[in-house]
Amino acid sequence: MKVIIVGGVAGGASCAARLRRLDEKAEILMVERGPYVSYANCGLPYHVSGVIEKEASLLVASERLFREQFAIDVRTNCEAVSISAKDKTVQLRNVLTGETTTESYDKLVLSPGAPSLCPPLPGVDLPGIFHVRTVPDARTIRQWIESGTTFLTGMANYTGMQMAKPTRRAVVVGGGFIGLEMAENLTHLGLEVKVIQRGTQVLGPLDPEMALVIENHLTRHGVHVVFGDGAAGFSQLDNGGIEVQTASGKTYPADIVIFAIGVRPETKLAQTAGIEIGERGGIRVNDSMQTSDPNIYAVGDAIEVKDFVTGKWSLVALAGPANRQGRIAADVIAGRDSKYRGTQGTSIIGLFGGAAAWTGASEKTLKRLGDDDYEKIYLYPNAHAGYYPGAKMLGLKVIFRKSSGLVLGAQAIGEDGPAVDKRISAIAMAIQLGATVYDLEESELCYAPQFGSAKDPVNFAGMVAGNILRGDMPVCHWETTGCEFLLDVREPVELAIEQVSGAINIPLGQLRSRLDELPRNREIHVICRSAQRAYYAVRILLQNGFKAKIVSGGMLARTHAVS
Amino acid sequence: MKVIIVGGVAGGASCAARLRRLDEKAEILMVERGPYVSYANCGLPYHVSGVIEKEASLLVASERLFREQFAIDVRTNCEAVSISAKDKTVQLRNVLTGETTTESYDKLVLSPGAPSLCPPLPGVDLPGIFHVRTVPDARTIRQWIESGTTFLTGMANYTGMQMAKPTRRAVVVGGGFIGLEMAENLTHLGLEVKVIQRGTQVLGPLDPEMALVIENHLTRHGVHVVFGDGAAGFSQLDNGGIEVQTASGKTYPADIVIFAIGVRPETKLAQTAGIEIGERGGIRVNDSMQTSDPNIYAVGDAIEVKDFVTGKWSLVALAGPANRQGRIAADVIAGRDSKYRGTQGTSIIGLFGGAAAWTGASEKTLKRLGDDDYEKIYLYPNAHAGYYPGAKMLGLKVIFRKSSGLVLGAQAIGEDGPAVDKRISAIAMAIQLGATVYDLEESELCYAPQFGSAKDPVNFAGMVAGNILRGDMPVCHWETTGCEFLLDVREPVELAIEQVSGAINIPLGQLRSRLDELPRNREIHVICRSAQRAYYAVRILLQNGFKAKIVSGGMLARTHAVS
Repeated sequence: MKVIIVGGVAGGASCAARLRRLDEKAEILMVERGPYVSYANCGLPYHVSGVIEKEASLLVASERLFREQFAIDVRTNCEAVSISAKDKTVQLRNVLTGETTTESYDKLVLSPGAPSLCPPLPGVDLPGIFHVRTVPDARTIRQWIESGTTFLTGMANYTGMQMAKPTRRAVVVGGGFIGLEMAENLTHLGLEVKVIQRGTQVLGPLDPEMALVIENHLTRHGVHVVFGDGAAGFSQLDNGGIEVQTASGKTYPADIVIFAIGVRPETKLAQTAGIEIGERGGIRVNDSMQTSDPNIYAVGDAIEVKDFVTGKWSLVALAGPANRQGRIAADVIAGRDSKYRGTQGTSIIGLFGGAAAWTGASEKTLKRLGDDDYEKIYLYPNAHAGYYPGAKMLGLKVIFRKSSGLVLGAQAIGEDGPAVDKRISAIAMAIQLGATVYDLEESELCYAPQFGSAKDPVNFAGMVAGNILRGDMPVCHWETTGCEFLLDVREPVELAIEQVSGAINIPLGQLRSRLDELPRNREIHVICRSAQRAYYAVRILLQNGFKAKIVSGGMLARTHAVS
Repeated sequence: MKVIIVGGVAGGASCAARLRRLDEKAEILMVERGPYVSYANCGLPYHVSGVIEKEASLLVASERLFREQFAIDVRTNCEAVSISAKDKTVQLRNVLTGETTTESYDKLVLSPGAPSLCPPLPGVDLPGIFHVRTVPDARTIRQWIESGTTFLTGMANYTGMQMAKPTRRAVVVGGGFIGLEMAENLTHLGLEVKVIQRGTQVLGPLDPEMALVIENHLTRHGVHVVFGDGAAGFSQLDNGGIEVQTASGKTYPADIVIFAIGVRPETKLAQTAGIEIGERGGIRVNDSMQTSDPNIYAVGDAIEVKDFVTGKWSLVALAGPANRQGRIAADVIAGRDSKYRGTQGTSIIGLFGGAAAWTGASEKTLKRLGDDDYEKIYLYPNAHAGYYPGAKMLGLKVIFRKSSGLVLGAQAIGEDGPAVDKRISAIAMAIQLGATVYDLEESELCYAPQFGSAKDPVNFAGMVAGNILRGDMPVCHWETTGCEFLLDVREPVELAIEQVSGAINIPLGQLRSRLDELPRNREIHVICRSAQRAYYAVRILLQNGFKAKIVSGGMLARTHAVS
């Protein structure tokens, strides 16, 4: 059996190595357009800033290792140009020499990835404008910043400009993963960074009110985000810099521009084979990673995956799923019955010591799908026991089925990155296993004062959600609370910090003795700082015949509530 | 309904607060023998060293809060002396005044905890010998160390000794949680610490080979552990210190002794009610937290719990389970159908920046139960992507059913505490939900280079276990490998570090071309550093007709293998 694997990074490399382990006799040819196989593209932003110092660190497994340990024929700088599905051949081109060859296959695996989007804007090819997809990209950006003068001097000959100047101002176009990671790393290098984001929030997979917390965090660390605008063109300034022109007519001067508006599945090659492309623009595969041609498999960022929670086709460019898909494709090629379960989209991004992470469905995804059988909660627990020093607040949003309690998704944000990671990883595991919020209530995670709480934030989330579903704690949200009677059960001293206009204040400790001040004919929406005391108050009110709801997340949720 | 809750810390306090939320009308009386309710006993060792600076931090919820927010009648310094189950009354005694009263109940909840074991050894009451169970304990230890002179001077009057001296040498009797946490905190205070441990390992719930890693870690941080010996008596030295005499006849001088040999369920009060005590010596309850008397409930460290994995009765003194049990008792008393699922024993201990954590069944527990339908694996993955700086190694042991793949238990150790926490918490969630190793393979945890790897250690564990169960990778262990043919597939340069006598070295890259050097009539056990290359080698060997197994964990597992 001869297997050709197109693409030698996450999905392709995993597939090749797994296939060899399963089948010593298979002839395996892995081709990679770039100069390296199996490199760590997730590390590129950190190499730009020097956090990852050596370029060699990014090369996870060498060509030589694939040859020696796995007896795999690896060809780098080798592009697959076209496929003849009928003849079962692939035309290959050496990108250095232009030489083409034709190779036949029994099974073909496509792992071409998803190149960075690059609209044909005026000036988009100017020196100083970069994408961040490959090791050479990172190298060039690093050199541009480190020895900007040399580069600019060289360029001066070409542009006729007079003066070189140091790299001081960066414009990052795009507020997704790569955009924000680059913003952080460029900030660490001392650059002033502006992020231009076409939409109304950073980090698209997050719900907007959670993304708002990240925006504030970025601002505190000196990164300025411009929303609702996009790059429209670029021109060379006389001083050697670049002027970024936006759709709204604004201009931003920059010494370096990072282009990171997203990726698009690479399907050009797949289309030459006539295989099916899905509705989202990715290669369509079944749960055996097989395309519409049973001899052609596809994995990684180029494919559409079934969303684990919603069951809908989606595009998710993540290394973990790519690796697992590559492994499954190899299993199936080797005659095994492996199935891909779908992608939850579990992700984390570290930013200036903090982190944001999420897994499963977001509220906006459910809204887009017209799914209204869900409820959501906001919690602000300590990342570890409050009595142990350094406990930072976690912002946690959990989304679950109203009808069944099934956990649908979770998002967390906090200054304590590992604490964010722990909770979203645990909930990701729970979602994978079909957990309900009642399971979260009973979960038994690690606890010692440095690491958690006797009631972990994950337990709390389950308890809060369980209280809602059992009818013990009716809930409403800032964006839907309006003309109801607002009761604030905080202490007077807390009102000095922030007050809600129109709210009546009765501190929780006095509530039982002041029930006669409350209306029996109106729904009472109860607020406090985090909604914990509001919960206690709602329990008192309900048992005394009032109609009452907590406002989820209390004052803490209000500051990032979306209207 | 009148409910009396005996014990106002984790389980009792949770029960009281939950019960009030469910029932505004219940009359709730919570009595606590000590001076504080709801204090953080898990923080006590950290208060001794001043990491937790203020004593007030340890008081999680005050008496006043219970009264004002929960309308609960709280009595501290109030001991429940006896129960008349027939009359449904409890006799209470004010420990300060000695005054006794009798209170009737409709429902009674016992949460008396588990006092520190204190065998009646000669001299065990000498000044300078402490237990660590309460806030006053921590305060006294702290004062003893901080102002040892004052104390010793005061004591000099009593003992007639001449000279006071600073606290310099500590002996900790017992190598469990509290013992080791105290050892760390006393070390931070500049004391020389010796731990005397009766058994052959520290941290009883860990398997011995994993505990060995912790012992080495302790030694590196200056804590010396003496095994196989126990305290037999104490005497006052002329210089004001204490001499610890051991069972084996050794003596250790100390300026302070911490007694932490374990805890025993407090059942004295329960016995006055004639309720059933279980085989392990704890109060026996059903999954509604009900004792043999249907009007008496019990929660927390004093009860026996069903082990979630083995289904056996066991004693587990942990705050998380105690809190959930208190909540469930309240639910049931309020007429709800809540059930306790059993205790996994998920635990973590931070030590000198690193951590050890575990969940589910240990191998030694399974052995004790005569359960041999299990397999185990050892892995040594990086805590996060190797290409990102600061990646530290995790030692991970996972135990699973041979017949079904069900995950039974996991233990992790590493210098990166949060990374240990993340994996054991995720696996704890998996065990709670009945996951198999095949689920671990497909799990989708958070990945960014600072936080994990595209194939997380949890995925790796699933893959390694899955490979074994699918027959792709036969496995053996250091303790059972013997006269077989040993093949070492490491590079020659690695052999210089450590070599296994009798092993034949063929580097992995040369294996395919040197197969004729290997015997076809003997089982080949393959070793490398971590067992990853051994796996590759085994795949080559099996497919070429050899009988081969990896040695799980490779050289890394050998250093802590038990014979």
